[in-house]
Amino acid sequence: TKTGELKYMLKKFICCKKGFIGCSDSYKDSKVVIIGAPMDLTVSFRPGARMGPSKIREVSYGLEEFSMYSMDSLNNKSYYDAGDLELPLGNVIESMKTIKEASNCILENGKIPFFIGGEHLISLPVIEAVSQKYKDLVVIHFDAHADLRKDFMGEKYSHATVMRRVAELIGGKNIYQFGIRSSTEDELHYARENTNFYPFSFMGHIKEVFKELKQKPIYVSLDIDVVDPAYAPGTGTPEPGGCTAAEILEVTLLLGDLNIVGMDLVEVSPMFDLSERTSLLAAKVIREMLIRMG
Amino acid sequence: TKTGELKYMLKKFICCKKGFIGCSDSYKDSKVVIIGAPMDLTVSFRPGARMGPSKIREVSYGLEEFSMYSMDSLNNKSYYDAGDLELPLGNVIESMKTIKEASNCILENGKIPFFIGGEHLISLPVIEAVSQKYKDLVVIHFDAHADLRKDFMGEKYSHATVMRRVAELIGGKNIYQFGIRSSTEDELHYARENTNFYPFSFMGHIKEVFKELKQKPIYVSLDIDVVDPAYAPGTGTPEPGGCTAAEILEVTLLLGDLNIVGMDLVEVSPMFDLSERTSLLAAKVIREMLIRMG
Amino acid sequence: TKTGELKYMLKKFICCKKGFIGCSDSYKDSKVVIIGAPMDLTVSFRPGARMGPSKIREVSYGLEEFSMYSMDSLNNKSYYDAGDLELPLGNVIESMKTIKEASNCILENGKIPFFIGGEHLISLPVIEAVSQKYKDLVVIHFDAHADLRKDFMGEKYSHATVMRRVAELIGGKNIYQFGIRSSTEDELHYARENTNFYPFSFMGHIKEVFKELKQKPIYVSLDIDVVDPAYAPGTGTPEPGGCTAAEILEVTLLLGDLNIVGMDLVEVSPMFDLSERTSLLAAKVIREMLIRMG
Amino acid sequence: TKTGELKYMLKKFICCKKGFIGCSDSYKDSKVVIIGAPMDLTVSFRPGARMGPSKIREVSYGLEEFSMYSMDSLNNKSYYDAGDLELPLGNVIESMKTIKEASNCILENGKIPFFIGGEHLISLPVIEAVSQKYKDLVVIHFDAHADLRKDFMGEKYSHATVMRRVAELIGGKNIYQFGIRSSTEDELHYARENTNFYPFSFMGHIKEVFKELKQKPIYVSLDIDVVDPAYAPGTGTPEPGGCTAAEILEVTLLLGDLNIVGMDLVEVSPMFDLSERTSLLAAKVIREMLIRMG
Amino acid sequence: TKTGELKYMLKKFICCKKGFIGCSDSYKDSKVVIIGAPMDLTVSFRPGARMGPSKIREVSYGLEEFSMYSMDSLNNKSYYDAGDLELPLGNVIESMKTIKEASNCILENGKIPFFIGGEHLISLPVIEAVSQKYKDLVVIHFDAHADLRKDFMGEKYSHATVMRRVAELIGGKNIYQFGIRSSTEDELHYARENTNFYPFSFMGHIKEVFKELKQKPIYVSLDIDVVDPAYAPGTGTPEPGGCTAAEILEVTLLLGDLNIVGMDLVEVSPMFDLSERTSLLAAKVIREMLIRMG
Amino acid sequence: TKTGELKYMLKKFICCKKGFIGCSDSYKDSKVVIIGAPMDLTVSFRPGARMGPSKIREVSYGLEEFSMYSMDSLNNKSYYDAGDLELPLGNVIESMKTIKEASNCILENGKIPFFIGGEHLISLPVIEAVSQKYKDLVVIHFDAHADLRKDFMGEKYSHATVMRRVAELIGGKNIYQFGIRSSTEDELHYARENTNFYPFSFMGHIKEVFKELKQKPIYVSLDIDVVDPAYAPGTGTPEPGGCTAAEILEVTLLLGDLNIVGMDLVEVSPMFDLSERTSLLAAKVIREMLIRMG
Ligand SMILES: [Mn+2]
Ligand SMILES: [Mn+2]
Ligand SMILES: [Mn+2]
Ligand SMILES: [Mn+2]
Ligand SMILES: [Mn+2]
Ligand SMILES: [Mn+2]
Ligand SMILES: [Mn+2]
Ligand SMILES: [Mn+2]
Ligand SMILES: [Mn+2]
Ligand SMILES: [Mn+2]
Ligand SMILES: [Mn+2]
Ligand SMILES: [Mn+2]
Repeated sequence: TKTGELKYMLKKFICCKKGFIGCSDSYKDSKVVIIGAPMDLTVSFRPGARMGPSKIREVSYGLEEFSMYSMDSLNNKSYYDAGDLELPLGNVIESMKTIKEASNCILENGKIPFFIGGEHLISLPVIEAVSQKYKDLVVIHFDAHADLRKDFMGEKYSHATVMRRVAELIGGKNIYQFGIRSSTEDELHYARENTNFYPFSFMGHIKEVFKELKQKPIYVSLDIDVVDPAYAPGTGTPEPGGCTAAEILEVTLLLGDLNIVGMDLVEVSPMFDLSERTSLLAAKVIREMLIRMG
Repeated sequence: TKTGELKYMLKKFICCKKGFIGCSDSYKDSKVVIIGAPMDLTVSFRPGARMGPSKIREVSYGLEEFSMYSMDSLNNKSYYDAGDLELPLGNVIESMKTIKEASNCILENGKIPFFIGGEHLISLPVIEAVSQKYKDLVVIHFDAHADLRKDFMGEKYSHATVMRRVAELIGGKNIYQFGIRSSTEDELHYARENTNFYPFSFMGHIKEVFKELKQKPIYVSLDIDVVDPAYAPGTGTPEPGGCTAAEILEVTLLLGDLNIVGMDLVEVSPMFDLSERTSLLAAKVIREMLIRMG
Repeated sequence: TKTGELKYMLKKFICCKKGFIGCSDSYKDSKVVIIGAPMDLTVSFRPGARMGPSKIREVSYGLEEFSMYSMDSLNNKSYYDAGDLELPLGNVIESMKTIKEASNCILENGKIPFFIGGEHLISLPVIEAVSQKYKDLVVIHFDAHADLRKDFMGEKYSHATVMRRVAELIGGKNIYQFGIRSSTEDELHYARENTNFYPFSFMGHIKEVFKELKQKPIYVSLDIDVVDPAYAPGTGTPEPGGCTAAEILEVTLLLGDLNIVGMDLVEVSPMFDLSERTSLLAAKVIREMLIRMG
Repeated sequence: TKTGELKYMLKKFICCKKGFIGCSDSYKDSKVVIIGAPMDLTVSFRPGARMGPSKIREVSYGLEEFSMYSMDSLNNKSYYDAGDLELPLGNVIESMKTIKEASNCILENGKIPFFIGGEHLISLPVIEAVSQKYKDLVVIHFDAHADLRKDFMGEKYSHATVMRRVAELIGGKNIYQFGIRSSTEDELHYARENTNFYPFSFMGHIKEVFKELKQKPIYVSLDIDVVDPAYAPGTGTPEPGGCTAAEILEVTLLLGDLNIVGMDLVEVSPMFDLSERTSLLAAKVIREMLIRMG
Repeated sequence: TKTGELKYMLKKFICCKKGFIGCSDSYKDSKVVIIGAPMDLTVSFRPGARMGPSKIREVSYGLEEFSMYSMDSLNNKSYYDAGDLELPLGNVIESMKTIKEASNCILENGKIPFFIGGEHLISLPVIEAVSQKYKDLVVIHFDAHADLRKDFMGEKYSHATVMRRVAELIGGKNIYQFGIRSSTEDELHYARENTNFYPFSFMGHIKEVFKELKQKPIYVSLDIDVVDPAYAPGTGTPEPGGCTAAEILEVTLLLGDLNIVGMDLVEVSPMFDLSERTSLLAAKVIREMLIRMG
Repeated sequence: TKTGELKYMLKKFICCKKGFIGCSDSYKDSKVVIIGAPMDLTVSFRPGARMGPSKIREVSYGLEEFSMYSMDSLNNKSYYDAGDLELPLGNVIESMKTIKEASNCILENGKIPFFIGGEHLISLPVIEAVSQKYKDLVVIHFDAHADLRKDFMGEKYSHATVMRRVAELIGGKNIYQFGIRSSTEDELHYARENTNFYPFSFMGHIKEVFKELKQKPIYVSLDIDVVDPAYAPGTGTPEPGGCTAAEILEVTLLLGDLNIVGMDLVEVSPMFDLSERTSLLAAKVIREMLIRMG
């Protein structure tokens, strides 16, 4: 119709910035599905991670689609940005249920889920879903904190207990923890006895460790606070003494050799990120991972 | 002992700023008990109200103890600041249970509870406790929002449903709502049929309404967003078009004629309050109310 | 297909927040078209208005779709949000050309354009397009500044000259200026001799003036700095001494009686708006106008 | 010389923004002398007023030189901006001595001093100097605080004692205090017995009071916190409940009928003024006063 | 009594966050005494260090009590947090006198003083007191600035002269300065001739130097600006080019071998620390030092 | 005259902070001329660089005039700060014309131009002028971005195309690019074939490269975003993964061996620089370069 044509004309002037930069319009043809989980119910120090997914998408347009790191472009990849999950405010159990159902849906469609948090607890239902599909799943966990508490203030489900719950699910020996520099004494004992634990500076170990993991299905859970607050101030529980932005970007190159079947990037909290460099770093990490996974 | 004396000497140099300005060291002899409820689990737009109680206490030292409004001083009053409740992060039901138990404790001791939020949902357990002690309790509700939803995103307990739950508890006819300028159509119908509803500009009505309430036990629930965001920007769901700071201070004078048996001031969110004027206004309102109630 | 079904399942969890709250998916069936013009090239004091459209959309979800002011809801209206125009950075002439072409496209489709700025200069190409369709067009201009300079630093096209250019186009007698409290001496003389000029406090005049305009096609150009910086700090050239948020909301009710054939809201600059109340006020004004126009 | 000429050529491209907007290059021919006193040593709640003078000058270029309020322009006036005094950090007595000497210098030259603070204590040495020249000096004091303490934390010289010191100097009956809404009980008693005291809302009284003062030499001391924190958040001890920006601008018109022989504007603290509207309001007040005094 | 019991019940719900995390209730049994000196009178560039002590305490609850760095916990240590000194605003001499008296009191009680600034000048009275008790005291000074001026703007006592005064007190040869990267030419000459001077990058020297100091009583004075502004932006005179957060944490391990008899951490200025990472780093350094010293 | 003398007396109290710290009053006798180009018309992600020059001057007073890096002082150098160019808002072509004319004027006077941006496009007219004087000019370019696009959104002149334009002017072989970590695929191909390209970490290469350049006239163009956003957050298009502040300061030492005939430092955007450390780093780099060049 005439109106249809005119509408098409209007579109010609429009700059469309919906979803992560370079994302495909077609869910069906995409290999990776980005999805936001804007939950920050159990964050202990400073809330605000719920605003992470939308801010990361927004600033992604400040980057190029081409990466000088990997010499490849998002334009050669196919991924869909599904937007944010609608999570009931104040209800942790129901929120996790929704996250798991969405994960199952993506996995059943034969696609790789890439969750953007939100707080770290969102990883648990995603890993539950992924581990049901991939029986010998390995979780690679980057974080300043061990997240291995038995419970937190009486609560079983918390961003401080999430890796303990994952350990109960897939076994501590299938968890590789990098960059941890804060824990309780109990968590430290648990880590030493149960998980593969690479605390503090980890760049020296990572290549060798990754070699052993090449045959395994891998889930990557990246808490942005593994990076030093100088490079990633916008997070709920910043912990001075972490790695640099350049180092976490180098990590993405090393992850490229692995068989990644799911990923999340969590705990970006835009309110403490006036310069937006935390969101930009997160977006750049996601760009690199999409080029490897897409 | 010698050490005791020396310790005493150290104290002489110290400026003690614990608790709300002018608060008593003695719980036993106090008439009003201030208590913080740092919960912000169901806040819909922007979290951060959990930091309200500690910020309001901090800035209270920027005020005088003497009030030119009431020509009286906090020094002539007796109130205790119990600090903040320890609430389990992510667990709404358990948090409300703790708030109710603390309220009961204060009431059983024959004291008046003065809660500082946190989000508006904290009012529900306090009003539950107060209404069990005072059978014909009237709730005076200042807010930009009706807070009368049946549920919010499927959740029964939310800062958007709190007054509906209160209405179910004490009857809508015992609720007086002032300053409401935002609601759903359903909430508006409910308010018109059930509560005493004074939307938008309310200063013209308030004197007459208060006259009728002089014989009743009164609970005051003051959502800081009833004030215009120009005067109170630091809140989770700011709604342009509210009253001025001077008007809400005038309200405190009018409340002085009533028999107030409990109160809360909620939804102060310091992260959006660079100039600290929202916290200062809250502290000033609390000072005036303590002078009336203490 | 199976994949199609599964995609449908994923959608069920998603909370879609694209475009202004409540906007329709159908351009064809919509009466009003919202469109962003993210240009801030000629802003004289502080840049940043380019971020206005996306921020206003984002915060619009902090409002209800139902309005207690007009007792009606966005749900009963039909408007389309076309997104932001793609404007060449640094090129004023080309940007204005794109804005005019987009305006023409909307007008030719029989729809009402509602532009969100961006700086005030964007109004010129929109008014050019609208005035070509409606020969006796009247422009109602709300602003702290007269915007009537002959040129600014040698430039003909500027946010400080926009109403002079409009006057040259449709005649000063068809321009009604409200709230002006800053001008050069030349601008003041020009205004007094050419336009309908209601400087400073204008609420007392507006009803009577609007009565005369009921038969005319009206374009409304609202520079957010007409509101006092206390209520609208997030703007490029704040000018203390303006109207309140409540007053500008009352203006939207009065505008409801007129035949509005185009509108813009300009100069919202989110970087100076930590509490987001400027964007929220803009979104609320837009909500009210959509209810009247939609 | 050739170089001289070329230098002149360079100047042609330069936009000179030194000193307050529109200030004269000639000290000799100027009637009013603006001078900054960047001291914030005794500020009790939040420091930062030292940055007031330079910020106010900077934002003054965001205003027009012409005023629609007074229908006159800074271009028709002659005032010199001497820059900021160099004050020894940490030394109150020495700082006050420097301020007094600079005041004397300006007065001996037959010019009117216009000080920009800095904290309110800077008014004392200026008033000392002015009162030595004008024997029956009257001080008009706008402030949220009485500033009438006998001492503050043991200190005689403080921004909380400044008007008590002035009262000891020129007699309380020569002080007119407007807008006070915070004091100790002692200060209030002192004010009632000694000064002309117009607390809280003062616009209703001011015209009549000013009538009596037409024959007197007047010094105006304007603490920006007399304005409500909504309009002037950038100050050290904000006190909710003050006047509006429009009201303080109206005050400048009324002051135009008086014989002003000295003035200060104090307590602007840019760090709490993200939107810069406090500095802009201060600059606008100064513009209006310069038009009246210049 | 009944009331006493009920009060006890209330306490059960309360989360007590007074003082630095993990501090003891008993002054008598504590080994280290934390005390705040909220003075910022002589800060040259940007004030605000007075808010350092309270902010550092507040954010300390964002850390764990257990340290993975030292494999020990604050729970095994005993230290008391005395709160902040009450210092007369604007009076440097009186403030230093109070700080010295408080230091003497702590030392006479056989305890180790740990001062939190405030500006660097506060170190002088503490070192005076400590050096009277320990005759061969060595001061280890971490700073971006030499702080060795003879006077500053005519003032003998200033944060820019503090180490010169200390040198006059205990001899320059007993001062070890690390990380200095800013000085006047005079200061540099003075340092080279008088103190042990390790400018710029110092990690390579520190182990060896510390070996020589094992037999000595040591006072540590840590100006947070020794750390690069990327890691510690919240300070009054940031100087780009400093050490990392990880390096200053490593320093705390090395200090563990020394006999520390007093310490201060100064110049944290929260107003320039939106992300709170400067305060968090300060709190983490204090945690590590308490574990070594407690 | 008497008045003249008194004026002199006033000056004695004044602290003059006009221009960059230590700048000379005499254009004629100066070797280097600092000049601000406050243009930010083509900045793609976040505007605000126009405020760079005035902020950098302001914070320069937070540094010492003496440099411990170069063991020399600004006091021994002679440079003039001409202030900011007056550029027509919104007109790129006219702005570049003004910049070129000012550059010519400085060069014709036998002085070295040192431009402070503003956005990177300002380098083009300066380099045009300098390359006309020095025929075999070499440009050393530090940046996170290649700035080698053929055009940007259809525009030939943009901060994203500036080095492509420079290459067309002086030949790509005369351009040395350091630190680039973001480009399109086309830019990368262009760089590899045309310019001397040292992407990512460059400290290892720089000494050797500079050796070859000792005989050449050198223009240095330093985009502050070459430094990691942790150290320089205040910029328009931050790109995580850059060099440290210490490294860029080391670069200034290495540049000291070259024959620098012109320089610019661009893209400092103060609005995203709450802690002011980006401006401080820029000022420190300028101090070091002035010591080398002056
Ligand atoms: Mn985690
Ligand atoms: Mn973590
Ligand atoms: Mn509410
Ligand atoms: Mn509300
Ligand atoms: Mn305008
Ligand atoms: Mn305007
Ligand atoms: Mn005052
Ligand atoms: Mn005051
Ligand atoms: Mn120091
Ligand atoms: Mn220092
Ligand atoms: Mn560049
Ligand atoms: Mn760049």
